[in-house]
Amino acid sequence: MKKHNFYAGPSILPDEVYRQAKAAIDDFAGTGVSVLSVSHRSKEYVAVMEKARALAKELMGLDDDFEVLYLQGGASMQFLQIPYNLMRTKAAYLDTGTWAGKAIKETRYFGQTEVVASSADRQYRYIPKDYDIPADADYFHITTNNTIYGTQMHNIPESPVPIVADMSSDIFSRRMDFNRFGLIYAGAQKNMGPAGATLVAVRKSLLGKTGREIPTMMDYRTHIAKGSMFNTPPAFSVFVVMLTLEWVKRQGGIKAMEERNEAKARLLYDELDRNPLFVPLVDKPDRSRMNVTFVLSDEGLQERFDRMWQDAGIVGLKGHRSVGGYRASLYNALPIESVRVLVDVMRELERKA
Amino acid sequence: MKKHNFYAGPSILPDEVYRQAKAAIDDFAGTGVSVLSVSHRSKEYVAVMEKARALAKELMGLDDDFEVLYLQGGASMQFLQIPYNLMRTKAAYLDTGTWAGKAIKETRYFGQTEVVASSADRQYRYIPKDYDIPADADYFHITTNNTIYGTQMHNIPESPVPIVADMSSDIFSRRMDFNRFGLIYAGAQKNMGPAGATLVAVRKSLLGKTGREIPTMMDYRTHIAKGSMFNTPPAFSVFVVMLTLEWVKRQGGIKAMEERNEAKARLLYDELDRNPLFVPLVDKPDRSRMNVTFVLSDEGLQERFDRMWQDAGIVGLKGHRSVGGYRASLYNALPIESVRVLVDVMRELERKA
Repeated sequence: MKKHNFYAGPSILPDEVYRQAKAAIDDFAGTGVSVLSVSHRSKEYVAVMEKARALAKELMGLDDDFEVLYLQGGASMQFLQIPYNLMRTKAAYLDTGTWAGKAIKETRYFGQTEVVASSADRQYRYIPKDYDIPADADYFHITTNNTIYGTQMHNIPESPVPIVADMSSDIFSRRMDFNRFGLIYAGAQKNMGPAGATLVAVRKSLLGKTGREIPTMMDYRTHIAKGSMFNTPPAFSVFVVMLTLEWVKRQGGIKAMEERNEAKARLLYDELDRNPLFVPLVDKPDRSRMNVTFVLSDEGLQERFDRMWQDAGIVGLKGHRSVGGYRASLYNALPIESVRVLVDVMRELERKA
Repeated sequence: MKKHNFYAGPSILPDEVYRQAKAAIDDFAGTGVSVLSVSHRSKEYVAVMEKARALAKELMGLDDDFEVLYLQGGASMQFLQIPYNLMRTKAAYLDTGTWAGKAIKETRYFGQTEVVASSADRQYRYIPKDYDIPADADYFHITTNNTIYGTQMHNIPESPVPIVADMSSDIFSRRMDFNRFGLIYAGAQKNMGPAGATLVAVRKSLLGKTGREIPTMMDYRTHIAKGSMFNTPPAFSVFVVMLTLEWVKRQGGIKAMEERNEAKARLLYDELDRNPLFVPLVDKPDRSRMNVTFVLSDEGLQERFDRMWQDAGIVGLKGHRSVGGYRASLYNALPIESVRVLVDVMRELERKA
């Protein structure tokens, strides 16, 4: 049976991408060699890296000050690499959950950190709205979508300093003026591809200003100078990112993704708001269109509900271990049919309960 | 036509591994979900990580002080992470080429570095033999195989301090007393799997002694505490590493790999020593069984030789851009038949020249 994959990440990719990835394991770009076994210095692979970088820039409409890199270590490594490269004396962070908290923790080696606001008081079920961003900060860091809690920033604030954004779980999912940012980063394993590659889009003009000596691999300028190939890149992951971004482009770009994602989220949130057996966890204005979190109004129904969605071929619906309940992740590649299957299960539970 | 893949890395993997990897893109471990799209917290994936860690330990016969991790960033990130974790005041390094030099460069942020010997005087065509390792160093760093130059350390020196070894291009290729080391690391993309994962086998008893605050992602203890899953691992790369190590074990372990690699290397070096048209680059006692470097005695034959090996279905024979000439990489998964094809081409060139 075809599975409906609601995993929060690593997560579903388009069927075409799976097919293309498999074909390239046999024969990459007509070389007769597997994509797993081709030199990253071959002209065929260099073309993959260049295309993956160019497509990200094109899809987001980034201006020429931006350089796109595919690095390793996930967002967790960026939590460290960002202050290494950008923090002179002080940075401002918005605390919207676990991942924001981890990013804040890594700044302590580099200077003063000001947390401008936090939604910890209500288990991160909303996005703080009223706060001041200090004009003397080197940057202001936000997490645009909070995978664990299911919140999303639907408005990016005005900022007197460059905005650095962790977009790991909503990149390429909705239109934004991406040129408003100073640095955008995202682990690949939600909307972009398999785990193992991390997109970093950084404004060149922000670099080289800390006065700090930066170890070679930590310095964005190292990777910019070498076209994101200073050392062997996570070659297969970047290849699948390229395939996925080609798919996004063929579908109509970020605008088309946004329309589909809105339709999927509406379908599920409407059911959660209507069906008395379910309680969505996040304040309405801050609900994520990527990760929909909810609980049962009667925990006694859990066993029955779990059996029903599993029988329907659904996987990955369990909430993050720190939150519990349920989480349905509706990333770009998830078809609306999968959401319909989930909504049907919810309605069936209501009829039978 | 089937290609004979002599790439220096990423490089050839066993045919069975390609088949298993493709099958898992369709259906991973009977989950009905692609290995590219399964949660790293699923029990099926956790089992992959555990098996990949356990197999490395088993194949190398490591004692219980060792922890095996699969990290990101390649050996280049380890050049930084090693002194971060192990260097208090001073470290000793053996300079056997470009990669050793890059490792040395990253120590400058952490303390004093003593280069005990270097083979730079003769373009790194040999391994230095007579040197003293300072007893007050925190560790002594070596590169067991030098991919670019084609040299290999066939004897590991006695050392008064823990030995840290970059085994990127010869791990799992030959027997050694691996318990003599304090830390062993290797990018996956030669003998272990695709790019994107880096094996680190580290003695727990060496950690936590620098008095230095270590950023979370840089601290080996972070990854040890979380079973190499502190954050999303390079899931597919580690999966293919597991498949490759299972293959090594089925073939008879490192001993069987060593026997095959010796046979392949002998076949090629014998031809290089016999055939007057070719000149091997490395001193006999230090020749690598993994990367065989050579030049033509008459450069005027280059065009003809290049056409001949390409026509024979050989790829990846060009030397590293910093050295020139030719390099044949004979990693574990390369069949001896591919070496025979290359030797036949060399003999044919001799007949026709």
